[in-house]
Amino acid sequence: MRAGTNLPAIGGYNQVVILDVIRRATDGISRVEVAERTGLSAQTATNVCRRLLLDGLIHETGTRSGGVGKPRRILELKADGRFAIGIHLDPSVLTVVLLDLSGAVVSHKSFPTLADTSVDEIVDRIASAIDEIVAASAIDPGRILGAGVAAPGPIDLASGIVLNPPLLVGWDRVPVREMLSTRLKMPVLLEKDVTAAAVAESWTGTKGNNFAFFYYGTGVGAGFSLQNDVLRGSSGNAGEVGNLVVGGGGPSHPVPGRWRLGDAVLPRNVVGRALAGGVVQASGDWLDSAEVQRAFDDFAARAREGDPTALVIVDEIASDIAEGLVSIIDVLDVDRIVFGGPFWYPLAPLLLERVPALVSRSRFLVPPHPISFEEATVGQDVAATGAACLVLDHALTPRPSTLLISHSDD
Amino acid sequence: MRAGTNLPAIGGYNQVVILDVIRRATDGISRVEVAERTGLSAQTATNVCRRLLLDGLIHETGTRSGGVGKPRRILELKADGRFAIGIHLDPSVLTVVLLDLSGAVVSHKSFPTLADTSVDEIVDRIASAIDEIVAASAIDPGRILGAGVAAPGPIDLASGIVLNPPLLVGWDRVPVREMLSTRLKMPVLLEKDVTAAAVAESWTGTKGNNFAFFYYGTGVGAGFSLQNDVLRGSSGNAGEVGNLVVGGGGPSHPVPGRWRLGDAVLPRNVVGRALAGGVVQASGDWLDSAEVQRAFDDFAARAREGDPTALVIVDEIASDIAEGLVSIIDVLDVDRIVFGGPFWYPLAPLLLERVPALVSRSRFLVPPHPISFEEATVGQDVAATGAACLVLDHALTPRPSTLLISHSDD
Repeated sequence: MRAGTNLPAIGGYNQVVILDVIRRATDGISRVEVAERTGLSAQTATNVCRRLLLDGLIHETGTRSGGVGKPRRILELKADGRFAIGIHLDPSVLTVVLLDLSGAVVSHKSFPTLADTSVDEIVDRIASAIDEIVAASAIDPGRILGAGVAAPGPIDLASGIVLNPPLLVGWDRVPVREMLSTRLKMPVLLEKDVTAAAVAESWTGTKGNNFAFFYYGTGVGAGFSLQNDVLRGSSGNAGEVGNLVVGGGGPSHPVPGRWRLGDAVLPRNVVGRALAGGVVQASGDWLDSAEVQRAFDDFAARAREGDPTALVIVDEIASDIAEGLVSIIDVLDVDRIVFGGPFWYPLAPLLLERVPALVSRSRFLVPPHPISFEEATVGQDVAATGAACLVLDHALTPRPSTLLISHSDD
Repeated sequence: MRAGTNLPAIGGYNQVVILDVIRRATDGISRVEVAERTGLSAQTATNVCRRLLLDGLIHETGTRSGGVGKPRRILELKADGRFAIGIHLDPSVLTVVLLDLSGAVVSHKSFPTLADTSVDEIVDRIASAIDEIVAASAIDPGRILGAGVAAPGPIDLASGIVLNPPLLVGWDRVPVREMLSTRLKMPVLLEKDVTAAAVAESWTGTKGNNFAFFYYGTGVGAGFSLQNDVLRGSSGNAGEVGNLVVGGGGPSHPVPGRWRLGDAVLPRNVVGRALAGGVVQASGDWLDSAEVQRAFDDFAARAREGDPTALVIVDEIASDIAEGLVSIIDVLDVDRIVFGGPFWYPLAPLLLERVPALVSRSRFLVPPHPISFEEATVGQDVAATGAACLVLDHALTPRPSTLLISHSDD
């Protein structure tokens, strides 16, 4: 159990196990099948299902004939039985989403993170945005399980504090979990943004839970799902891949030779190289984050059109990302790379043409199996969606440790 | 459950849970306490303990008065109730160990891995060595649970094959698990050597199960224990940190600038630099692995005596290891580094003076918490011991997944 949280669990272990089985049965499931799949007795399955029906977490959606015997009533998850809120605190844009119990986005809203706004004002704006999307969706606020907030690292997971993210100006040891919990009057979970992205992928994806999520945002980072569990690390800061040394080199790299992945592909630095190469133009010397986004989009458009100078920079980015991924794959032996984040998409077709071959052909790649590469299942709002999935995950996923804990509490 | 193994579990889930509780109670434990700590009913606890007594896995070692009521009989693990064999297939030295149920080494034997010996002969020599230590220890062979073999990567964990380790000459896709299982007539588990070292530390250490084990052997590698589980990766090859790019630089580095950790600190390369600097002497141009070991020991002795040229090389090794560890800590957010392996010990005092400060002061270290550094709990034979612990771990550690599997099998 995460330290410092007090998220209400949905009933005991058996209840969560049964809810999980019903959730995964996309065509619905009968009580008999619930008993078969969980190994619980028919009586226990029936009793738990009755309670889930009473709590509005599942509903009966029809009957199915099973050969001999009377038709079986079919149970399905009641998507609007509960909701979860997700918040992504990005240096450029704030995003809030409302998810239902099935993991579908019911409503979302985003707005720029203004650099000269105080922490208190940002928390207020987040809370107001949540009030708005809850009001607009006309749901019962009593059905909201809680909120998850995805923030750039470093964070202090145990105490729910955002420490001093380099790109989040003016934030220094902000107890964001407590501030939001007080303001929203609900339990709040904190997660590092890239780890939240991995939670979103493992919650919504269908291809298994062992992967590295390469997140290309205002900064770069990775989220890991290993051996069916998201890796958080001892303080919630796993996935800081920006300091991995990569080759660099190419003609547009200002310092050929040694180079850190985060510096090499940072959108602001890429834009700087595109400006220096005459690929894009800018009005002044200092670009704010919206201008960086626009210039990056322009650069990506030139590259997609085949501009040779832009493509040299794309080749460098692909090579740097591939080198970083080889290090990640060597260290963790993952066999699947998932790409996402706002700065991934403008370059996606170009990078997907280049990165997989560069990784697979690297003489420094040790694990002896193919690596698959794909885009994230959730495109837009992936970190905010992941933060909300985190809440669903805490409430809905059966954790054997819960069983052991409840044993010792008996 | 590991694919392709058929290691016999010691009874069902409750039996393994109770055995685990008894194993961890170093002063012994009463049946009442067993029931309290497991949450099982007194009747179940008593029944399971009776079976464990009959199977010779535990024994009664006395009585303890618990205030009112009659004195309680004390149960303890019966160390000689079962045994496990561990094998370390190192490019330089073959090691076999016999562990008892408490994890103590009962007997061990090691001998050089001769480069011109065929795979079949090596397997025969391992099997003979095991026969010898089992015979010499006068134990009942029927009490041996199985054998674990630690081998250099890359391996194919699922099929129990050692693929083509760069330092193990002549080995190419060797089905070592099956060969040893046939020859030894017992179940065999395969694990990568550095992961086996991590298993040994997590099984014998007392400081928690979140750490990176930096193994300095004929090659270098890392084993990880994360979120209380050893990380194996999708094919059993996690921990290939030798290709991480580190700074290099120092005057004795032949290629200043870009440098891979494995090349930078490879004992053979270190010896090459020590020879070039006149720190040690060698008879010929090509050194076999025993000569590398001797020259490395000489170099380490010169450094410990304060030879300035030797200390320059030590500074370079410390700097390269520290850079590699910063990458590992950034990626995984571990807060503890464990050092071991045969080439660690000659330099241990010098490296422990240098590496922790270099890591902690690095401007590329992101996680905001102190890092502890220590030597492995098991010094000699750590990979062989870990391979044997793997067998104990499979037989003795309660895994909630076992519970879920048995549910679905009901």
